[in-house]
Amino acid sequence: MKQEIKTNEHIKIIPLGGLDQIGMNITAIEYEDSIIVIDCGLSFPDDDMLGIDLVIPDVTYLKENISKVKAFFITHGHEDHIGALPYILNEVNVPIYATKLTIGIIEGKLKEHNLLNSVKRKVVKYGQSINLGCFRIEFIRTNHSIADAAALAIFTPAGILVHTGDFKIDYTPVFGDAIDLTRFGELGKKGVLALMCDSTNVLRQGFTMSEKTVGKTFDRIFAENTEHRIIIATFASNVDRVQQIINSAYKYGRKAVIEGRSMVNVITTASELGYIKIPDNTLIDIDEMKNYTDKQIVLITTGSQGESMAALSRMAASIHKKVTIKPGDTVILSSTPIPGNEKSVARVINELSMKGANVIFQDTHVSGHACQEEIKLIYSLVKPKYAIPVHGEYRHLKCHGELAETMGVDKDNVMILSSGDVLSIGYDKAEVVGKVPTGGVLVDGLGVGDVGNIVLRDRQNLAENGIIIVVMTLEKYSNQLLAGPDIVTRGFVYVRESENLIEEAKNVVSDALEACLDKRVTDWGKIKMVVKDSLSDYLWKKMKRSPMILPIIMEVD
Amino acid sequence: MKQEIKTNEHIKIIPLGGLDQIGMNITAIEYEDSIIVIDCGLSFPDDDMLGIDLVIPDVTYLKENISKVKAFFITHGHEDHIGALPYILNEVNVPIYATKLTIGIIEGKLKEHNLLNSVKRKVVKYGQSINLGCFRIEFIRTNHSIADAAALAIFTPAGILVHTGDFKIDYTPVFGDAIDLTRFGELGKKGVLALMCDSTNVLRQGFTMSEKTVGKTFDRIFAENTEHRIIIATFASNVDRVQQIINSAYKYGRKAVIEGRSMVNVITTASELGYIKIPDNTLIDIDEMKNYTDKQIVLITTGSQGESMAALSRMAASIHKKVTIKPGDTVILSSTPIPGNEKSVARVINELSMKGANVIFQDTHVSGHACQEEIKLIYSLVKPKYAIPVHGEYRHLKCHGELAETMGVDKDNVMILSSGDVLSIGYDKAEVVGKVPTGGVLVDGLGVGDVGNIVLRDRQNLAENGIIIVVMTLEKYSNQLLAGPDIVTRGFVYVRESENLIEEAKNVVSDALEACLDKRVTDWGKIKMVVKDSLSDYLWKKMKRSPMILPIIMEVD
Repeated sequence: MKQEIKTNEHIKIIPLGGLDQIGMNITAIEYEDSIIVIDCGLSFPDDDMLGIDLVIPDVTYLKENISKVKAFFITHGHEDHIGALPYILNEVNVPIYATKLTIGIIEGKLKEHNLLNSVKRKVVKYGQSINLGCFRIEFIRTNHSIADAAALAIFTPAGILVHTGDFKIDYTPVFGDAIDLTRFGELGKKGVLALMCDSTNVLRQGFTMSEKTVGKTFDRIFAENTEHRIIIATFASNVDRVQQIINSAYKYGRKAVIEGRSMVNVITTASELGYIKIPDNTLIDIDEMKNYTDKQIVLITTGSQGESMAALSRMAASIHKKVTIKPGDTVILSSTPIPGNEKSVARVINELSMKGANVIFQDTHVSGHACQEEIKLIYSLVKPKYAIPVHGEYRHLKCHGELAETMGVDKDNVMILSSGDVLSIGYDKAEVVGKVPTGGVLVDGLGVGDVGNIVLRDRQNLAENGIIIVVMTLEKYSNQLLAGPDIVTRGFVYVRESENLIEEAKNVVSDALEACLDKRVTDWGKIKMVVKDSLSDYLWKKMKRSPMILPIIMEVD
Repeated sequence: MKQEIKTNEHIKIIPLGGLDQIGMNITAIEYEDSIIVIDCGLSFPDDDMLGIDLVIPDVTYLKENISKVKAFFITHGHEDHIGALPYILNEVNVPIYATKLTIGIIEGKLKEHNLLNSVKRKVVKYGQSINLGCFRIEFIRTNHSIADAAALAIFTPAGILVHTGDFKIDYTPVFGDAIDLTRFGELGKKGVLALMCDSTNVLRQGFTMSEKTVGKTFDRIFAENTEHRIIIATFASNVDRVQQIINSAYKYGRKAVIEGRSMVNVITTASELGYIKIPDNTLIDIDEMKNYTDKQIVLITTGSQGESMAALSRMAASIHKKVTIKPGDTVILSSTPIPGNEKSVARVINELSMKGANVIFQDTHVSGHACQEEIKLIYSLVKPKYAIPVHGEYRHLKCHGELAETMGVDKDNVMILSSGDVLSIGYDKAEVVGKVPTGGVLVDGLGVGDVGNIVLRDRQNLAENGIIIVVMTLEKYSNQLLAGPDIVTRGFVYVRESENLIEEAKNVVSDALEACLDKRVTDWGKIKMVVKDSLSDYLWKKMKRSPMILPIIMEVD
């Protein structure tokens, strides 16, 4: 085939997100008049993005080249790979290609956003190829912490590109078969131009354990805890984990209850599509729990990351409507905290423990990402000319690059990219030839992109220091003070304890205002500035604080 | 001695902080007219304590019983054990007893707060005892991540109380001798009423490694990196760690530079008091660095936790005045992230890596706290009747209690306390007999305690949603609208993109106001409420957001 012959053609690889921050995975592959896009994920806001619900990638480049864009190819159904679709599809409405479960999960999202009828999507099987524009895209079976994950082999005029998606190597997966290592090897034999490989666990030595090892731990815990209720929290999308809990429940004669909206959604989809097998009379509704004793129940729930609104956190805080934690409950956190969530998870463990629950959080989780030995295995099969590490922070990408070198990739052929880099790549040469706009677009309520840096800076300032509003009514022309100055504060100090302070502040403002009017200052901007500066000085001297100060002048005829 | 005979006397143990949250360690021990206080620490604000600088314990109980309070006994010089002293001493001014380095560090704080002349303090040696009121307090040598750490044996009319302070067992400490295990054993032979033992690492199996193992790692890294500058970040107060870096520097012919205010302070004190030995011509000033080549320098700095204002973070972000990171720099993070700091630390590692630094953060730290086997060793020596786990979250205290049971403490004699519990304890009986006020007092700038829950809730709301201020000027009596309504927003949406929104909002407010005035509503509280509700409804429907809405009415005669 033409694509597999080494040529001196070049394609462009443009990561539009995901490399500088976790999440927001989206990569454009371009050749002449064809662009295909791999994944379209969101990220959750950083701590300094106050009040923001979620962050989606800036796809200006796709919008500007909309006539070239052929389709989205989605590797698996996690939020950091599919979450931005409902937002981006409004502007870049092209077909979506993915495996069956992935499409099922995406359809759930499209339904919520009323997009089900306006977006084309197509289910692809492992081994199947799609021809689009100048590209042929083949889906390859992998393993991950969600079923139906795929790597992509992209046959281009410049050569074959292999994108692993998020993956691990699981020889004994819970659902389906092990990763198709043979296909990776076959592609390697044909000759692969570049490998874009998952870097998440590249800092970890060895091999990630099989998902099935967690099932064995569940069995052991079920066997040891026969007298009490068992509650297990895990990621909503980890269908195989839920399958294993249900297997243990069936084996030990317990009924399973699923609680937490996102988990109910995913499991419903997985069940409809045949990705989870639930024995008859095993799953019951949460309202039926009362018909069973504690030792007949296992509750499967969301909240393993300590998310404050998730079901487990609400149980721990005694604000869950239907479940009250009792002494003796065995609670399993089947997850490890994602960086940043450690304190929230610890809080939930403490609250559960105080209520007398026996909390188990060790050996109850395995990662869905490949460690060093697995990554090496992929390199040894694919033997790419270029290594383009993806899905990691800079420290991961760098470590991945060093690992690629040990696997025989030439140092100069390790491409550590940043989001927005336009990499022109072919057998003779690879170089960053440009930069396209990228960055996070902030979503707050229904607003997409209407909260920017100024608003965030104001929120930060308000959060740390509160606000003081100074209102004055002046007569038009004469500038005579008709009312005020009045001072209102929020988030500054507790008013009852600070009456004197507010009185003194009013005097400061009055003096400043009087001085202005005496000097016949008529420029209201100037008056506001003087009021603000004098009050600011006073407060800093008095209490070493800098609240936001907002002078407002009202004008009366 | 009287105290060592088993009696039926009872003392009170009152943890005033530290058990429900990390930090703020402070415990009162009371018998009749005598109270002594162990430690007086601060804690750093939780994520939801917006704008707060630090948190100190509520010592209402000590103030109300000020005539009984004899002294503070401080176990070691870490912030979570001494940091609240400068604030609390203003209200509870009693003498401070501690070992030499601890007193030295406290004096540095007192100097900053102009309290050096008004507070008595006394240096105590290991093995020495202080008689105060009904108590005799003996200082016992331990090991920790700061030199001169002590456990306390408190001889009371009810029996002997042993408080470990923060400790580990280090048979080969960098400075001084190993923990005085013999003394713990002697006390155990006499009979110990209760053991209050550090729970920090109780979830970890095994033994904490010796501080000296880190020195070996430093030697290896120095030997392997002879061509470039070495930068090592660690905790400012870890004098032994700095000693080992200086040892390696001397051995490998490098000059050492210390950077970061808090580290300079601690090392200066430690050096003056003989706790660190710096060979002549080894330490140089940061401004002298330019006289040496990179391979002649090791820079010792703060910022190992990714704290945004610390020296290493400023270097990583290219805003440090005197140090610029260069390709080839070897940067060692000699610490592990404290829970909650993982993301900040990762950010610093990424920034350093992007600048070409080689960042090393594995095997470069050991903990200062005892793991399970060390805690067991202490129990086996002290053989207390009661176990009162301290210094941990609930999950740690609970696990510690279980471990104490395996060491022979009766299940009923494991006392898991909360802050504020008044534990009455004697050989015949131990029970919580009361509760005293406790909690965190928030420090913001010069204000101590003037920011409370209402202010924090407002800050949270402002942070997430921003504020909309609606100002109107009404004529007195007639209630005629003279000016406005004007709308000003901060932290809501970027104004230029929302002009229409603001115009529409003004109309909503005007309509609501008009309706009020038509109905001759004269109660301004009512008018404000109507304005607020109508605008709130409008914004929720329009954009699913709930900014804080603050109506202000000005009155003109």
